[in-house]
Amino acid sequence: MTTHRFIPTIFHNVIGSLPVALRIASGDTVVTETLDAIGYDKDGIRRASGPNPMNGPIFVEGAEAGDALKVDIISMTPTRGTGFTRSIVAANVVDPETVRGLPPRDTALWTIDREALTVRLSEPVAGLENFVLPLAPMIGCFGVAPALAQAISTATSGEYGGNMDYRLFGPGTTVRFPISAPGALFFLGDCHAVQGDGEIVGTGIETSFEVTVRLTVEKKSGLVWPRGETAEDIFTIGNARPLDQALQHATSEMLNWLASDYGLDRTAASHLLGQVVRYDVGNVFDPAYTMACRVAKKWLAGRS
Amino acid sequence: MTTHRFIPTIFHNVIGSLPVALRIASGDTVVTETLDAIGYDKDGIRRASGPNPMNGPIFVEGAEAGDALKVDIISMTPTRGTGFTRSIVAANVVDPETVRGLPPRDTALWTIDREALTVRLSEPVAGLENFVLPLAPMIGCFGVAPALAQAISTATSGEYGGNMDYRLFGPGTTVRFPISAPGALFFLGDCHAVQGDGEIVGTGIETSFEVTVRLTVEKKSGLVWPRGETAEDIFTIGNARPLDQALQHATSEMLNWLASDYGLDRTAASHLLGQVVRYDVGNVFDPAYTMACRVAKKWLAGRS
Amino acid sequence: MTTHRFIPTIFHNVIGSLPVALRIASGDTVVTETLDAIGYDKDGIRRASGPNPMNGPIFVEGAEAGDALKVDIISMTPTRGTGFTRSIVAANVVDPETVRGLPPRDTALWTIDREALTVRLSEPVAGLENFVLPLAPMIGCFGVAPALAQAISTATSGEYGGNMDYRLFGPGTTVRFPISAPGALFFLGDCHAVQGDGEIVGTGIETSFEVTVRLTVEKKSGLVWPRGETAEDIFTIGNARPLDQALQHATSEMLNWLASDYGLDRTAASHLLGQVVRYDVGNVFDPAYTMACRVAKKWLAGRS
Amino acid sequence: MTTHRFIPTIFHNVIGSLPVALRIASGDTVVTETLDAIGYDKDGIRRASGPNPMNGPIFVEGAEAGDALKVDIISMTPTRGTGFTRSIVAANVVDPETVRGLPPRDTALWTIDREALTVRLSEPVAGLENFVLPLAPMIGCFGVAPALAQAISTATSGEYGGNMDYRLFGPGTTVRFPISAPGALFFLGDCHAVQGDGEIVGTGIETSFEVTVRLTVEKKSGLVWPRGETAEDIFTIGNARPLDQALQHATSEMLNWLASDYGLDRTAASHLLGQVVRYDVGNVFDPAYTMACRVAKKWLAGRS
Repeated sequence: MTTHRFIPTIFHNVIGSLPVALRIASGDTVVTETLDAIGYDKDGIRRASGPNPMNGPIFVEGAEAGDALKVDIISMTPTRGTGFTRSIVAANVVDPETVRGLPPRDTALWTIDREALTVRLSEPVAGLENFVLPLAPMIGCFGVAPALAQAISTATSGEYGGNMDYRLFGPGTTVRFPISAPGALFFLGDCHAVQGDGEIVGTGIETSFEVTVRLTVEKKSGLVWPRGETAEDIFTIGNARPLDQALQHATSEMLNWLASDYGLDRTAASHLLGQVVRYDVGNVFDPAYTMACRVAKKWLAGRS
Repeated sequence: MTTHRFIPTIFHNVIGSLPVALRIASGDTVVTETLDAIGYDKDGIRRASGPNPMNGPIFVEGAEAGDALKVDIISMTPTRGTGFTRSIVAANVVDPETVRGLPPRDTALWTIDREALTVRLSEPVAGLENFVLPLAPMIGCFGVAPALAQAISTATSGEYGGNMDYRLFGPGTTVRFPISAPGALFFLGDCHAVQGDGEIVGTGIETSFEVTVRLTVEKKSGLVWPRGETAEDIFTIGNARPLDQALQHATSEMLNWLASDYGLDRTAASHLLGQVVRYDVGNVFDPAYTMACRVAKKWLAGRS
Repeated sequence: MTTHRFIPTIFHNVIGSLPVALRIASGDTVVTETLDAIGYDKDGIRRASGPNPMNGPIFVEGAEAGDALKVDIISMTPTRGTGFTRSIVAANVVDPETVRGLPPRDTALWTIDREALTVRLSEPVAGLENFVLPLAPMIGCFGVAPALAQAISTATSGEYGGNMDYRLFGPGTTVRFPISAPGALFFLGDCHAVQGDGEIVGTGIETSFEVTVRLTVEKKSGLVWPRGETAEDIFTIGNARPLDQALQHATSEMLNWLASDYGLDRTAASHLLGQVVRYDVGNVFDPAYTMACRVAKKWLAGRS
Repeated sequence: MTTHRFIPTIFHNVIGSLPVALRIASGDTVVTETLDAIGYDKDGIRRASGPNPMNGPIFVEGAEAGDALKVDIISMTPTRGTGFTRSIVAANVVDPETVRGLPPRDTALWTIDREALTVRLSEPVAGLENFVLPLAPMIGCFGVAPALAQAISTATSGEYGGNMDYRLFGPGTTVRFPISAPGALFFLGDCHAVQGDGEIVGTGIETSFEVTVRLTVEKKSGLVWPRGETAEDIFTIGNARPLDQALQHATSEMLNWLASDYGLDRTAASHLLGQVVRYDVGNVFDPAYTMACRVAKKWLAGRS
C-alpha cells in the first residue's frame, strides 16, 4: 500500500474520461492539494478557473465498470488562512415573491484559524459579533467518470458523484461510488471549511485544502448511487431535481443496500426506515439537488 | 391558569371554523385523550373514522386574526399497549419504476411497553428480531382554524398547521401557529409513539395518547408559517409540494424571524443560515409535504 | 327542464358544504351573474371581497356521493365594458434569479367591446398598439363541494374542481365533476374574458359575466378528477404541484376513462396516448397547478 | 452554398467536443441518414448501440462561443417501413400507486406506409383497429456541443439542446442553439415518425430517416436556451426537472427574446404572454423534461 503525493498541473471543470493524471494500485493512499471553488491555491494564486476545478483523474488499477470505488476520507487540512462565501441566500431557496426583496449578491471573506480550528467572518457583521464556527471540513465535489464516456460539469452531480455539497463528506467518512469506466477515474476538489445543510448561499466556506484519501476497488458491487458510512451511520445519496426525486433515488438505493448486505426484505426494511430513517439535504442550490437517506448503525448491529 | 380535562364526544376530520368544543383562557392548560389515526381509542373501541380524527376546536379567549397561538407540549402518554403502521414504504418515496416490485400494502402491529417506554413489532420479522425502539411521542396533526372560514382535511396541512407529521412536535417543544379566526380554534390528534423522518410508510406508530398542552395567545405576531422551539433549537415549518417549495416557505419564514426577533438583516441571516442551518423532512407522504428549517440556539445566544 | 335565474345575495370565498342558495332538478338550466375575481359587479359596485367570490351553492336533486355532476357551459356574456389584469408575469414562472429584475406588480385595465367581441388594453402600451384580442370567455373557478365536508379557498383547486383557470372551460364545453356531498353543491365565478395558458400574470382578463349552465346528475360515475369534452376533444384535469404531479393525476384519470368508456386496456390506451395525447397547462400560478390531458375525438370514433 | 451528403461511420451516445466528422461553411446544407434510437439503420442492421446514436459532430466554419447556430429543418423522409415504440406509459407519468397495476413494459412494432405517409400498429390491438396516424416526422435529439468541453449523454438535454423529444422539431421548423464551442459541433439523430406530447411511453415511433438541414451561424445572439420558429409560431425551450423549472427557463428565454427582437419590455411582454402564450410539453420522460413557451406570430406582426 503506497502513499502518493499528487501535485496536479492541470485542473478540470468536468468529471469524465480524461487523460490519466495519476495511476495507483487499489488500496493506495493519495495526498493532494485542492484549489478553492474558483481556482485559487494556498498562496492565493489563481491556477485554474471555476466551476470547481478538480484534481484528477486518478486511475485505480483493477477497477472495471460495475465495481465500486471505496474512498476513505482520511484527513483534510486547510492550507490557507482565508475562505469566502456568497453573502446572500440563493433565490431558489426562498419564496419567489421574496426574491424581489433580497439584497444584491456579494462575496464575504472568512478567517480560518488553523491553530484553534475555527472560522469567523473577516469583517464584523452586526448581530454576528460572536459567530465563531468550529472547522468542519468536507469535500464539495468528488466522484468517478460517468457512463458512456461522458464528461460532466463540476457544477452538477449524478450517479457517479460530482458536486453534491453534503456536509457529511468529511474526514472519517467512507464513500463508495459506482464505477463506469476502466480505472474508475477518480476526481476531487471544491473543499469547504464549513457548510450548512443545502449550501443555501451557493457556497460553503470555500478554501484550499490538503486532502488524504485511500482508494480501494471492490468488485461487483451492485451500487447505482453513492453510498457512505460514518462511525455512527450508513447513508445513500440521490442527486436530482426536485428534492422529491433525489429522495426517491436515495431511498431506493437504501432499500437495495439493506436487502443485499443486511438481509432485510422490502417489508423489514420498510419497518426499519419508517421509524428510524433520517434525511439530510446535501445541497439545494446546484443544478442537481442532493438528498441523503441515513440510518444509524445501532439499528443494524450484527447484521452486515 | 386553569387546567381543563377535555373529553370530546365528537371528533373532526377537518380543521376549520366548527362549533366550539371547549372554551379556555389564554395560558390555560388542557389535558385530553386522542384517538389513533383511524379512530380507535385506548380501549380499542372505534369512536370515529379517519383520516386523523381531531379533538377540538378549543376556543382561546382573546385570540384574534393576526395573533399567534403558543402551544407548549407538556406531556404525551400512550394510553394503550398497541400501535399500528403500514408495512411498506409509500409508492411516492421510491423511484417510479421501483414501485412495480413493491409488495402489497398491509398493516403491522406494534407492542408499546409503557413501563420500559419502548416499542417493538408484535410479530417477529426476519432481520428485526432485536429492533426495540425508545418511545418518542409526537403529535402528527394539530393547528388552528385556517383563513376564510375554510375547513380543511386532516390529511393535509398549510400555514395553519395540520397534518405535518414532524417528529420534533413532541413533549418539551413549543409551537406557535398564525391565528386566522377569533378564538384561534385549536385542534389536535393523530399522535405517534415513534416516527422516522418523512413518515415514509404513510404512518408513524399510530396509537391513542393522553396529551397535555398549554395554550397562550401572543398578540401581533407576524407569523406566516408555524414556528417551533426545543431546548436546543428554533425551527420554522413549510407545508407544500414539492419539498423544494416547502423548503422555500420554511426558509423565508426563518429569515423573517431572524430579522424581527434576533436583529439579523438578510445578509447576517444568510451568513448564519448558510453555515449552520439544518433541514428536516417532516413528512413526504401527505398531500402537502413538510420541511423544517432549524437553527441551534447556541448560535443565537444573547440575541432574542 | 326548468331555467332558473339565480341572483345571489351572498358570495363565498370557499367551495364547500355551505347553506344552499338554490335548489334545482337534475337537467335544469341556471342563468346567473358572476362578480369579478375581487368582487365587483357589472356596475362597478363592490359586492364581495376576493379571492374569487362564488355564486352558489346550487343543490341538484338526486345527486349523491359517487355520482358525477355534468355541467354544460351553454353561454357566457360579459356584463360590463372593462376588465383588469396584473401587469407582470408572476415570480414563480421565471427563473428565480430573474425575479430580481422584474418591475413591481401593478394592475392594467382592458376595454371589452361587447359588439365587436374584442378586448384591448385601455391605455396604450409601447409595442402593443395593435394588440386586439378576440373575446374568449372561460370560467376560472367552479366545482362541487369536496369530501369530508371540507370548505376550501377559491384560490386553489382539487379533485372537486375549484380555481383551475383553464382556458377550455368556455361555452360549448361540458365538464363532469366527482360528487362528494348530497346535492353536489355547485359553485361558480371568477370568469375571464381572455386568458393564455398558465394564467402566468396571475389573472386572466377579469370581469363580470352572465353565465348559463345546465346541471345534470349522472349516477355511479367512477370519476376521481374532473373530465371535460369539447366538440373536438375529451380531456381530464389534474390539480396539484408540481406540474409533474398534476400531469400524473390527469393521465391516470384519462387511462381510467379510456378503459371504462372506450374499451381500451392499459396497453391500447398507451399506444393511443403515446402518439396523440396533448397536454395543456391550465394554470401555473395558483396554490395547485392545473394540467389537462387531452385527446382528439377523431381517434376515438365509434368507440364510446 | 454547398450541399453535403454525410454518411457517418461512427455514431455517438454523447453530445460534446468530439473529433469532427464533417466540416462545412455557414449556410451549407447537409443530407444525412440517421439510425433509430437503439442503433438500427434503414436495412435493419444494427450499426450502433443506444441511447440515441448521433450523426456528427459537424463543424460549421466561423462559429464561436456566444453565437447561435440556426438549423433549418428542410426535410425528413423515413428510410424504412417499420418503427417501434414501448407499449406502456412510463411509470413517472401516472400516480405512484397506479404504477402497481401497470402491465410489464414491452415493445410494439409499427408499419410505416411511405406512399400514403401513414403509420399503424403492425399487429392488431383491440380497440385500435382503425388507428391510422398521419406521418409527422420530428427530430428527437439534436444540438451543439455544450460549454466547458462537456460530453453529455444523448438520453438527456440542456441549454445546448439534446434529447428534447418535442413534436414541433419537424420539417419547416427553424431552431437556434446557443453555441459554446468553436465550430458549434452539431449533432442529430433519434428521429420519430410520430410522437404525442410528453413522449409518455418513453419513445415516439422510432425509425431511421434521411434528414436535410441547413446550418447557418448567426453572430452574437444572446441565446441562453434553444429558440424555434414555425410558419405560425415562435417558441423557446426549457429543459429541466420538474416541469415547473423547464417552464421557468422557457418563459425567461421568451421574455429576453421579446425584449431584444420585438421591442417589448417586461410589462408589454407580460400583457402579451399573459393572454396568448401556449405551453407545450416536449417530453416528460427523459432525465430532463422539456417545456416549450410558444407565441403565435400574428400577435407579433410588424415588430421583429
